[in-house]
This record gives sequence, C-alpha cells and structure tokens, in this order.
Amino acid sequence: MSVTAAKGFTAAGIAAGIKENGNPDLALVVNEGPRRAAAGVFTSNRVKAAPVLWSEQVLKGGSVTAVVLNSGGANACTGPKGFQDTHATAEKVADVLGHNAAEVAVASTGLIGVLLPMDKLLPGIETAAAALGEHGGEKAAIAIKTTDTVHKTSVATRDGWTVGGMAKGAGMLAPGLATMLVVLTTDADLDSDVLDRALRAATRTTFDRVDSDGCMSTNDTVLLLASGASGVTPEYAEFAEAVRAVCDDLGQQLIRDAEGASKDIKVEVVNAATEEDAVEVGRSIARNNLLKCAIHGEDPNWGRVLSAIGTTSAAFEPDRLNVAINGVWVCKDGGVGEDRAKVDMRYREVHIVADLAAGSETATIWTNDLTADYVHENSAYSS
Amino acid sequence: MSVTAAKGFTAAGIAAGIKENGNPDLALVVNEGPRRAAAGVFTSNRVKAAPVLWSEQVLKGGSVTAVVLNSGGANACTGPKGFQDTHATAEKVADVLGHNAAEVAVASTGLIGVLLPMDKLLPGIETAAAALGEHGGEKAAIAIKTTDTVHKTSVATRDGWTVGGMAKGAGMLAPGLATMLVVLTTDADLDSDVLDRALRAATRTTFDRVDSDGCMSTNDTVLLLASGASGVTPEYAEFAEAVRAVCDDLGQQLIRDAEGASKDIKVEVVNAATEEDAVEVGRSIARNNLLKCAIHGEDPNWGRVLSAIGTTSAAFEPDRLNVAINGVWVCKDGGVGEDRAKVDMRYREVHIVADLAAGSETATIWTNDLTADYVHENSAYSS
Repeated sequence: MSVTAAKGFTAAGIAAGIKENGNPDLALVVNEGPRRAAAGVFTSNRVKAAPVLWSEQVLKGGSVTAVVLNSGGANACTGPKGFQDTHATAEKVADVLGHNAAEVAVASTGLIGVLLPMDKLLPGIETAAAALGEHGGEKAAIAIKTTDTVHKTSVATRDGWTVGGMAKGAGMLAPGLATMLVVLTTDADLDSDVLDRALRAATRTTFDRVDSDGCMSTNDTVLLLASGASGVTPEYAEFAEAVRAVCDDLGQQLIRDAEGASKDIKVEVVNAATEEDAVEVGRSIARNNLLKCAIHGEDPNWGRVLSAIGTTSAAFEPDRLNVAINGVWVCKDGGVGEDRAKVDMRYREVHIVADLAAGSETATIWTNDLTADYVHENSAYSS
Repeated sequence: MSVTAAKGFTAAGIAAGIKENGNPDLALVVNEGPRRAAAGVFTSNRVKAAPVLWSEQVLKGGSVTAVVLNSGGANACTGPKGFQDTHATAEKVADVLGHNAAEVAVASTGLIGVLLPMDKLLPGIETAAAALGEHGGEKAAIAIKTTDTVHKTSVATRDGWTVGGMAKGAGMLAPGLATMLVVLTTDADLDSDVLDRALRAATRTTFDRVDSDGCMSTNDTVLLLASGASGVTPEYAEFAEAVRAVCDDLGQQLIRDAEGASKDIKVEVVNAATEEDAVEVGRSIARNNLLKCAIHGEDPNWGRVLSAIGTTSAAFEPDRLNVAINGVWVCKDGGVGEDRAKVDMRYREVHIVADLAAGSETATIWTNDLTADYVHENSAYSS
C-alpha cells in the first residue's frame, strides 16, 4: 500500500545510520513512469530548511523522478553547507538511478541546526536504491518516522486508478508538532497543473486545518507524483476527491498520533459570516492552552472557548454566541446554557461546536489536548 | 504598602464566603480625597465580563471614589443577570460609603460562566467597609488572589508623593494565565487625563509585554486612582516613570508566580526595523509551546527560536538572524554558532536574545516555560 499502491512506483526504506539508535532513517520513492508529473506544497515558515529550498526549485519544473527522505536530522538552519549537502544528496540519487538531479526532490526531518552525517547518508542511498521494490511503500513509511509511534499510510482506489500516500509527524502551513512530510502517488495520467490544483485544494481543508500545537515547522513538505501507469485520465472532480480523501485520512492519523495527546479535539465553527472568520475562530480555539488543558482534565470549561473567540476579529456579537461540547449546548446566547454536568468526556474524541450566529459559513479545525506527556516529550527531544 | 502606601486611601480585604474554602475573597479600596481622579485600561478581549463593561463606563467620567474587587468568580458570560449583579455591587458600595454608584469601579476574577453568590457578596461589602483602614492595602492584595501563591504589591516613593499598587494573576491585553487585576494609587495631585496618559504609556511596555501563556482574559483590569492628598503635582515625566516602575515591578512578580512555571524567560528582540516588528517577533517566540517545553528541559534548542521568528511578518533575512541563550550566541547568520553545550540553564531566569539584523529597534517580552505542573493546574481548575 502506501506510495507503492499506485502503479508505476517503487520505494524502499532502510537504516543508513543517520539515527544513532539504528532505526530506519532513509526512504526512497521512485516514479518509474511512463509519466513523471508532480506538484508540491511547502511550509510557509520564512525560515526554510535546505531541502525545502531545494525541492521548491525542483517542483517548479513540474517533473519529479524520485524523492529521497531522511529522518534523524532536519538540515534546517545549517547555512551554505546544509544546502550543499541537500544538493549532494540529490546528485547521488540521480547518479545511482541514472536520472537528472534537477528532478530529484529531497525532504528531511529531525533536529534543527545540525548537519547531516553525509558519510552515512550517501552510502545509504546506494543501499536504498538496491532495495527498491513495488512493495516497498510500507518500509518507506517506516523510515520517515521520528517521534511517530506508528507509520501512516492511506490509499484510495477508484475506477482503474489509485491515489496512495504516506505521512509522518503532524502539521502544515500553520501547525506542526514536529515536521510533517507527506508523499502521495497516483497512476492516473495527469499533468502537473492538474496535480497542483488538486493538491492545493486538498491541503487547504485537510493538513492546513490540523493544528496540533500551533507551531510551524521549517521542513513541512507535501508532494504528489503521477506516473500515468494506469493509462486512465480521470475527471478533475473525481481525482480531486480521491486526493482529498487520502489527505484527510492521513491528517486524521497525524492527529491521533500527536505527541503526548490523550484527546483528539474537533473544533467545528458554524454560522460564520465568512469561511475566513470560521478558520480564524477555529484556530484561536484550537490554540488556547488553557482550553487544551481543561479538555485533558475532561472539564467542559466553555468559558475558555468564549475567551478564545473574543480574541479574534471575526464577525459576531458576544451575547449571541453558542457553544456545544459533545452535543450539550453548555453556552447559549453568550451565557450559561445546559447543565455542564451532562457533558460526557470519557472518550478520546471531543467535539466542540462554536456557533457565531453571524452567517452560514463553516470550518473544522482538528487539534489535541495539552498534556504532561507533551511537555515531557518536548522538553527532552534534543538532549 | 500596596494601595494604601499613598496618602488619601483606605482599603480592606475580608472573607465574604464567595470562595467555598473560606479564604479572603473581597477587597475594597477607597479614595478618601481630596481629589478622585482615575484612569483605567481593560482587556481587549471582545468577550468582556460584566464588571469590565461596568467599569469602562465608570472610568469614562474620569472619577472613581471606590473600587470593589472579588475573587471566587469572574462574572463573565453571565448575561443580563451578571450585569445586574455588578450594578447591585456598585450600588451597595455607594450606599454603605455614601458615594455615587457611577463612581464605583468593580473587578472580578475566577471561573467564567458562573453567577456570583450575591447573598454573600452584598453583606461582605458591609463587613469590608467596616474594616477599611490606612493600613488595609496588604489585606486587600491578599483577598484578590486566585491561583496566586503569593500576593503582589509594589511602591515607588518620590519627592513628597507616592505611587503604590497591588496585582493578582498574570497577563494583559494579549496574555493571561488567569485574569490580571491591578489597582494603583497615588497621592500626587493630577487630573484624569494625565493619569490616563501615564497609565497607557506604562502598561504598553510592562503588563502588555508579560505573556505567560498567550491566553487573553475576559476580565483584565488596571486602574490608577489619584487622591491629591500629598498636595504635590509632579512633572509628567517624573510621574510616568514612577507609574512605570510600579507596573514593571508588579509585572515581574506576576511572571515569577505564573502557574506551574519553573523558568522565567526574558525574550529580548534587538536590531528590529520597527518596535512593532520587535514585539511581534518577541510574542511569537514567547508563545511557542515547543520552545517553552525545551526551556523547561534546560535544552538550548535555538532551532525552535528561528522557527518561531519565521512565522512572523517582521523584516529580516533568514541567513542574518542571530540568537543568544544566556549569553552564548548559539545561532549566527541563521546557522550553527557557538557550542550549545556552553549554555548554562540551571537558574530560574533564562535570557533569549533574538537579533534580527534589520534595524535598531528593540522590545522585551517576558514569559514562562511550559510544564507538567501548568497542565495539571489548568486541567483541574473548574472541576
């Protein structure tokens, strides 16, 4: 499954020795054709890792023959040497596979501010290339894990064609526990403009609305590669739906594996004047540390929801706001609503509805609770 | 000390029974004149508690004869009944003291969305009025505590006049663990316009730059009352400096008592193109949960500083950024700088300098680390 579910792709995941603990840390995904169309979406953080700067250039050409990904080091804030290392990595892949380095995308994840051990990474590429196979997608997904407890893959099969993918971490344009890396593949026969359109439409309402801890990575990368190997050219709407389905599934898997989380929180903003308002309010609620602690304590503390809404510029009247937690309207017209004791918060998923009573637009943001485990995991990450 | 350090003020702090545990929960501060000039600054949260809505109106008159403050309930999101309760509280104070309710400010702090027990609060006002005294400032400061572990007071005495004050909680226009309530008093002989100017100038660079957890309260209130009892009218600059000194001292006390914190973090942004840029970058760093966890773990993880800077719209070039942690320039020109092992993080205060290399403006934001204790305290607050 994973990135090799679609025809025309091979992949591998191996341990190159980048991680000191000997776990898999290098993945290679190769588009065997006949087509090599591609699109990409990258972090909007202005401090971008070397592999992001490199891959943004590669994607401008609309063609990618291979993607090499490493965990164990983000190669971010590593200066000119870090960029040379990314370049050398792409060149090595091109050499080994007989491709052009300008069509090799690179992605990295791990600690910021540390140079990669190139003496291990470059030989690792040879090992990975020798291990490439039509069933290598699972191993590739495993090799890109950092603090992930499980690897994440998803597949959508349609009429004669498939979209598959793998992901690690959580977060995107806004968010991120750690870096999010995603590679999607399809054997549909489509050009890079169509891929780009479908990918941007899908990420806008999936990965972009997964906001685990409000921190934006320097390395976030989502790539979509098309081999054309199915010989089928689906309708745009049908293709876009399949890409969105895979992105949505992977996004949900990221939230469920968020560092230290004990609750997955669905923040649904309804009756907003505009979609932008709905997203702004949803993010403000999703990023409120006090609320995230309360949810962790299974406390339906709706005052913290109102307090978060109040910091936004969205259209609303404070005395018309309504809030439901797990189906109980604990806040009505900006004041006390149904009995908060009725709220059952025993389960992992928590559903907050914020009704702005200002229009008809809606948006859903996913986040996690804030836990002592999150603090422990992130206070000991680099040491 | 506290609000009774300046001449012309009496105060009291008593247990009215609003808090179920029997701790002090009601404070009264009275301006005995001859002058009753006042200025106030309130939360910019659009969801404002009833006492904030009330006191904003009172302050428009520029005259305040008394301030009544309660802990044990925020009276926020309590609808028309909550506003009636605030009004009744002011009327009761006016009755007991023989004042005008339109000159009585009200402030509340505690859980959102719960009505105050007026059957306890109103009799408590009579008890407090009977206990008013020239040395009551300390008890008043104690009565406004919620999760505060210590009460906070500060005094600046100048040539024949004094500015004193008390505070609870942490946070202001942006921030807040819990609500911040501050009452400052002075016996300088000044009108409300001068008070307003000095107060806004002081809060802008003190309480506004204390950002413990990025959450903004519905109840934040800072009041400055002048009795004129010293008979001295200081120069504006001298007065503004004294007000700023007291605000700065109280702000530092708030940070040192922040919920669950083990580190006080001074984020100093230097060489910014504008002061706004410096503040935006400082806040982004101060609100980065991943960095706050790293600091808790005594890990000089400067990559998270760069990652936070990268999410702002401030003027900078990524490859010209420099970061120092406790005096060690761990990041130079956007890449690896001095050895991070040189950074000593054993002490409570941590000093981060972010050099944007884009101008000559500067700003300092204070925050805390993110700890398991913060999570515990805030996951069990209302239950």
